[in-house]
Amino acid sequence: MPSVLVMPRDAPAMKMAAASDYQRGRAGSEIVLYDRMTEDRAAICARIAAERGMTMVPPYDHADVMAGQGTVAFELIGQVGPLDALLVCLGGGGLLSGCAVAAHYLLPDIAIYGVEPAAGNDVQQSVASGHIVKITVPQTIADGAQTTSCGELTFPVIKQLVRDVVTVTDDELVETMRVLAQRIKQVVEPTGCLAAAALLTRKIDLRGQRVGVVLSGGNVDLPRYARFLQGV
Amino acid sequence: MPSVLVMPRDAPAMKMAAASDYQRGRAGSEIVLYDRMTEDRAAICARIAAERGMTMVPPYDHADVMAGQGTVAFELIGQVGPLDALLVCLGGGGLLSGCAVAAHYLLPDIAIYGVEPAAGNDVQQSVASGHIVKITVPQTIADGAQTTSCGELTFPVIKQLVRDVVTVTDDELVETMRVLAQRIKQVVEPTGCLAAAALLTRKIDLRGQRVGVVLSGGNVDLPRYARFLQGV
Repeated sequence: MPSVLVMPRDAPAMKMAAASDYQRGRAGSEIVLYDRMTEDRAAICARIAAERGMTMVPPYDHADVMAGQGTVAFELIGQVGPLDALLVCLGGGGLLSGCAVAAHYLLPDIAIYGVEPAAGNDVQQSVASGHIVKITVPQTIADGAQTTSCGELTFPVIKQLVRDVVTVTDDELVETMRVLAQRIKQVVEPTGCLAAAALLTRKIDLRGQRVGVVLSGGNVDLPRYARFLQGV
Repeated sequence: MPSVLVMPRDAPAMKMAAASDYQRGRAGSEIVLYDRMTEDRAAICARIAAERGMTMVPPYDHADVMAGQGTVAFELIGQVGPLDALLVCLGGGGLLSGCAVAAHYLLPDIAIYGVEPAAGNDVQQSVASGHIVKITVPQTIADGAQTTSCGELTFPVIKQLVRDVVTVTDDELVETMRVLAQRIKQVVEPTGCLAAAALLTRKIDLRGQRVGVVLSGGNVDLPRYARFLQGV
């Protein structure tokens, strides 16, 4: 079916190219770019959906999206067995809330942690204050977590099922990308390193525990990735 | 038990560091470096083994080493089912000969291909001439395949079970490293890209076939890897 993807103009070129590849040959499909600093993605999507009679699929704040992303935890625990703790990357909260539901279904006592960029700790603030806090677009290399707030649907799940939300800095993300490349040979984008960075920098006391860490996403342009590996 | 590793002085620093990590805390263990252009590894190993009463474990020319490396093909086919062809990286021939034995045991009709650096096509020459050809140390970025000849044990297996040996250039290896990072998010060292490079550059006509490709090894120093990704 035809699809219109609404993406921030500063998304990795590789991510745009891959998305465009998947759309190829589907008439009526296109990518619409917007400026995440000055434009409102939700409004743009709603307008396009109304004009073209399309269904809107939000990036995280939808039960099906949350459930789909929750299969990460479901499959992980299915493969490796019981875990004491699970660390999950956190932007809008789709992956975290879905994983929290799936993990708690399988392991009622598991401790779930969300990890967001220090520059954009809106969920940490939201959990502390008890309501959704909206921030300005955070400046961080974790472009997948440059969200200004979590979702109306993801927040209640996070509040109920997530033990804690911690943050990591961009420098810690870069160091984690290097460790993941060097030791487990995986190319992981900055946002996808959030959970691993919290583990490696010991933001949470997990000594003696059996810990799952979600690595999520490898959309990073090679020249930029190469600079991260070189530490510049 | 204590181990002495004899490694070329120009091996990746990351590989030495990882090897040294594994030796840590084992008294009597050390890494001995040699110059692959002017010194004879086999002679150095034989001398150390004799002096210290140690067992020599060659890098490829030993039935146990070949069998161990053959578990790659054994597990691959066990996981993905029947294949028409299997492409394997080729230096001294341990991985190739082991995979050829394992794959033919499971799939008698499978076509096995070895892929070596164009600058060091000693096995291609050996297969063509019917005897082991020894060359000077090849100049290639595939440092794990800078072998001067295949083994006394690996060669007969290759001659009998391998359909063909093809070569790829260093430029083709670099491009393959980029594709593997970009599309399957794997950090693979130049030598480990040999088989994938032959696939991507269509060195063998594999149209319509179900093909297995062995990616082998991620020992590449990050600054060097970053330069490869940047194409310099």
